[in-house]
Amino acid sequence: MRTVATPGTSAATREHGETTHWVLSLSCPDRPGIVHAVAGLLAELGGNITESQQFGDPLSGLFFMRVQVEAATSRELLDEALAVLAEEFSMTWTLDVAGRRMRTVLMVSTAAHCLHDLLFRQQSEGLPVDIVAVVSNHTALADVAAFYGIPFHHVPVTRDTKAEAEARLLELVEELDAELVVLARYMQILSDDLCRTLAGRIINIHHSFLPSFKGARPYAQAHDRGVKLIGATAHYVTGDLDEGPIIEQDVERVDHSKKVEDLVALGQDVERRALARAVRWHAEHRVLLDGHRTIVFR
Amino acid sequence: MRTVATPGTSAATREHGETTHWVLSLSCPDRPGIVHAVAGLLAELGGNITESQQFGDPLSGLFFMRVQVEAATSRELLDEALAVLAEEFSMTWTLDVAGRRMRTVLMVSTAAHCLHDLLFRQQSEGLPVDIVAVVSNHTALADVAAFYGIPFHHVPVTRDTKAEAEARLLELVEELDAELVVLARYMQILSDDLCRTLAGRIINIHHSFLPSFKGARPYAQAHDRGVKLIGATAHYVTGDLDEGPIIEQDVERVDHSKKVEDLVALGQDVERRALARAVRWHAEHRVLLDGHRTIVFR
Amino acid sequence: MRTVATPGTSAATREHGETTHWVLSLSCPDRPGIVHAVAGLLAELGGNITESQQFGDPLSGLFFMRVQVEAATSRELLDEALAVLAEEFSMTWTLDVAGRRMRTVLMVSTAAHCLHDLLFRQQSEGLPVDIVAVVSNHTALADVAAFYGIPFHHVPVTRDTKAEAEARLLELVEELDAELVVLARYMQILSDDLCRTLAGRIINIHHSFLPSFKGARPYAQAHDRGVKLIGATAHYVTGDLDEGPIIEQDVERVDHSKKVEDLVALGQDVERRALARAVRWHAEHRVLLDGHRTIVFR
Amino acid sequence: MRTVATPGTSAATREHGETTHWVLSLSCPDRPGIVHAVAGLLAELGGNITESQQFGDPLSGLFFMRVQVEAATSRELLDEALAVLAEEFSMTWTLDVAGRRMRTVLMVSTAAHCLHDLLFRQQSEGLPVDIVAVVSNHTALADVAAFYGIPFHHVPVTRDTKAEAEARLLELVEELDAELVVLARYMQILSDDLCRTLAGRIINIHHSFLPSFKGARPYAQAHDRGVKLIGATAHYVTGDLDEGPIIEQDVERVDHSKKVEDLVALGQDVERRALARAVRWHAEHRVLLDGHRTIVFR
Repeated sequence: MRTVATPGTSAATREHGETTHWVLSLSCPDRPGIVHAVAGLLAELGGNITESQQFGDPLSGLFFMRVQVEAATSRELLDEALAVLAEEFSMTWTLDVAGRRMRTVLMVSTAAHCLHDLLFRQQSEGLPVDIVAVVSNHTALADVAAFYGIPFHHVPVTRDTKAEAEARLLELVEELDAELVVLARYMQILSDDLCRTLAGRIINIHHSFLPSFKGARPYAQAHDRGVKLIGATAHYVTGDLDEGPIIEQDVERVDHSKKVEDLVALGQDVERRALARAVRWHAEHRVLLDGHRTIVFR
Repeated sequence: MRTVATPGTSAATREHGETTHWVLSLSCPDRPGIVHAVAGLLAELGGNITESQQFGDPLSGLFFMRVQVEAATSRELLDEALAVLAEEFSMTWTLDVAGRRMRTVLMVSTAAHCLHDLLFRQQSEGLPVDIVAVVSNHTALADVAAFYGIPFHHVPVTRDTKAEAEARLLELVEELDAELVVLARYMQILSDDLCRTLAGRIINIHHSFLPSFKGARPYAQAHDRGVKLIGATAHYVTGDLDEGPIIEQDVERVDHSKKVEDLVALGQDVERRALARAVRWHAEHRVLLDGHRTIVFR
Repeated sequence: MRTVATPGTSAATREHGETTHWVLSLSCPDRPGIVHAVAGLLAELGGNITESQQFGDPLSGLFFMRVQVEAATSRELLDEALAVLAEEFSMTWTLDVAGRRMRTVLMVSTAAHCLHDLLFRQQSEGLPVDIVAVVSNHTALADVAAFYGIPFHHVPVTRDTKAEAEARLLELVEELDAELVVLARYMQILSDDLCRTLAGRIINIHHSFLPSFKGARPYAQAHDRGVKLIGATAHYVTGDLDEGPIIEQDVERVDHSKKVEDLVALGQDVERRALARAVRWHAEHRVLLDGHRTIVFR
Repeated sequence: MRTVATPGTSAATREHGETTHWVLSLSCPDRPGIVHAVAGLLAELGGNITESQQFGDPLSGLFFMRVQVEAATSRELLDEALAVLAEEFSMTWTLDVAGRRMRTVLMVSTAAHCLHDLLFRQQSEGLPVDIVAVVSNHTALADVAAFYGIPFHHVPVTRDTKAEAEARLLELVEELDAELVVLARYMQILSDDLCRTLAGRIINIHHSFLPSFKGARPYAQAHDRGVKLIGATAHYVTGDLDEGPIIEQDVERVDHSKKVEDLVALGQDVERRALARAVRWHAEHRVLLDGHRTIVFR
């Protein structure tokens, strides 16, 4: 433990023998003194900063910061101190225990690659999510969920039952206390209402290098256009379809000999890579919103 | 020399002591027997195939082939034999000496990176082009051309003189017997007429990953959209702006901290890479047109 | 069906109403006339070449060819005709039905990522292998095999039982008529004898960008050396450890902030990508041996 | 201007009407309070942090920080305050004006690609170096230097004159007040003495993906081994040849059809990319030494 016994931390240290590794993400209007104030608050509480990144966007005039800090202090003390600071700097902030698994619902239709990939990475690679449910408008992937021991919910969607289905989804999100919803190739368009309700908490993987080939059948479009690279885009979902803030993109090289189905197969690799990174960064509080752009402290 | 003395080649062999390395590119409606017929013709003339690629496009029903062959035969004999074959198979074909430098005009405005790059690669990396002129609507890059000893032609373009300027360009292309025109960041839109006249002989580098961000200021558009990769596209120019057949594309990773001018600087690397590859492949007869797509035998 | 009724194929066509898509891979000393002879043989049998690639290696003096052909002929006729040709040109050749699934044994220890990946790609992405067994010196991955319905064989290995274990493996390979053995992160070194017996039929994934970091704990070595990219190499196994012919390599960017365990997690993505490609290309007869190098007709 | 009138900065603000954009890089033994102390010092002087990155290496126990700050203070005041802090934390630090061009000597032999590239990027892409001399053991590239208006020094090296040549180089470095020496494909091995004298100030580009293919003719080695990717490595030069701390690496995909000379040509692109990035990051004080590894705050 590397805390220092200063007057300001003695109370905390007395109460909490164990050091916690915290992660704090924040944004506020840019002005001098923010870093000093944050570092000061953390030093007051006996914290040791292990990782920190900042960015000031000259266009939006906003300042962004993510800091990991080891401290033997309670969440209450931290929350209290941060609330005061947030007031002063008009700050939006999130405090979490570093490495805590974010409660996540995966939504799928029939394509299995992203589901498999996220479940596997959660189990084996330390993807910091706790997958509390797989929700699908089909039943095809129930056995995959079962293999990983994740509850599977079949919520069918027809034109007539869409509102009902979304209500059921929201209910699940609330019941399960889910913080994040990942559309892992879920082939239904969400209503504007739902997008707004879960704003900043839904990540989608679009099987194209946005903003190319928005809309339906992007690989067919890409094939027809004769592109030499195909891509995928992980983004937050907003009401404006395929236009939400981009979190991550990746590409794969293709050539003339590839048929549409080859592009689909090759694309799956890009999709799962881009989606897994986006989910990891979101769960680690590395992604901050700057209007319709993202700041990603990788 | 690895020719074989067969009756069919004896005449050719007698006349031409030296072996030439030929490259033959062709396309025709797909049907059985094409490869056999081409290989047979070349064997007849004592040729040794050193490299060969084929592709049949099930969508267009066209067959494409590129073959390099060492043969001690004359162009006349080859042309004659190929004309007969072309008749039979409704073939479009090109025969060239492998490695011959294609006579090329570079067109530029004020951005120097692609010009520098192509001139340098021609001089030092064996890019198989003979750059016979640099044409520009500005004078800023005259000294670069001079350094490499290439004639520089200033052809200013205003709204009123555009037709005149294009006529001058065509005149230059004819006088210099240029086979290829490369728009190496030439910031003028060519008329439909010129595009048609030089169809399949003009390559452009577009500073975006087409079909994203067509039109003006693509890096500003990319920045505004918050993309995580920027790209460039080398394509043939057609009347339909930024929609010509794509030859090559490449990308570079960027993040939130990059300003528009950073994207521009990073993009220059992608642009020159993609353009240089496209020019090389075209000059080596590796690019064949399949409707509005390209077959690239890399 | 696009066969042509020529005298040479009439018998075959009569017997075999259905067209088969064949893939033929061959190598032989380079000399004129090979392509013509092969194309001629295929044309004789009424075949239509749909894909073909050739390469002549000036260093080894060997010629390599892979051709896919649609033909309504029997295997017997093809085998017979190819045997004659092979005699004439001192040819090594393989004839297979295109897309046939190669019977494959996967060997694993405790790391699950490559196993999961290959099983998933076999099931969902058309990886053309028929996985007939998972063999492991541990039991940790038995449930993964069970999920995909693949027989799992636990063959423990100790210093004393190594010979016995390898005998059991060979027995399995024979009983199951396996054509390919994939070491999907199998952490035992095979004996020279076994390597020789299965020469050209064992593919390994090495968790490094060979020839860097041969031997044990490559990610720890890479971390210690401070490299900025980590890689993986899929290669044929020979007696000379980590020195077999390379089939495929790939890399991922890393930075100073990554710990050894992060490199391991990031590396898993590269490993499974490189291995899956190598297995696909091998199963499609796209990989030919040229001494200790490979020709890969992608 | 975004300074804040605090008692501590009033003197500075009075004296210096203009804000300067500073970059501060530092490393020291890790312990709590460093960020707070640095941020406090900068806030005291009225500074506004615009960019900041930190990293604590658990292995070496060292802490690294790079911060860009706008402040209307004099270098003297900053130096003074930092000296006090450095004493307290046993800190190594560098303070510079952000964007100042680092005085740089380029050393070359006969290969022109890296020289061209660096000169071009300096002129056109804002590479923040001031190239004060090109030094070569050959005369082949004198005209390239001349084109860019850079003094060219021919310092021939033979076995007998090596010590003399190095003395001449050191003399030039001192006369020209050069801060950085870039070996842009300089094909002479520097003596241990020279490496020590200029420790941390010489960057080399090695035409291989280190630690593969150390030593001579790496592309020939890579070709012989049949690798599927070729790479380049930019690193600091130490007495231990090709073993200095790695700054940047990159790769390019190759296949069996590429001859050694093709690898060389393809490799040039990777070399110039990797070297240009390394030079930029060094000149921007983004590279800090952590034993024989580098911390790169990109």
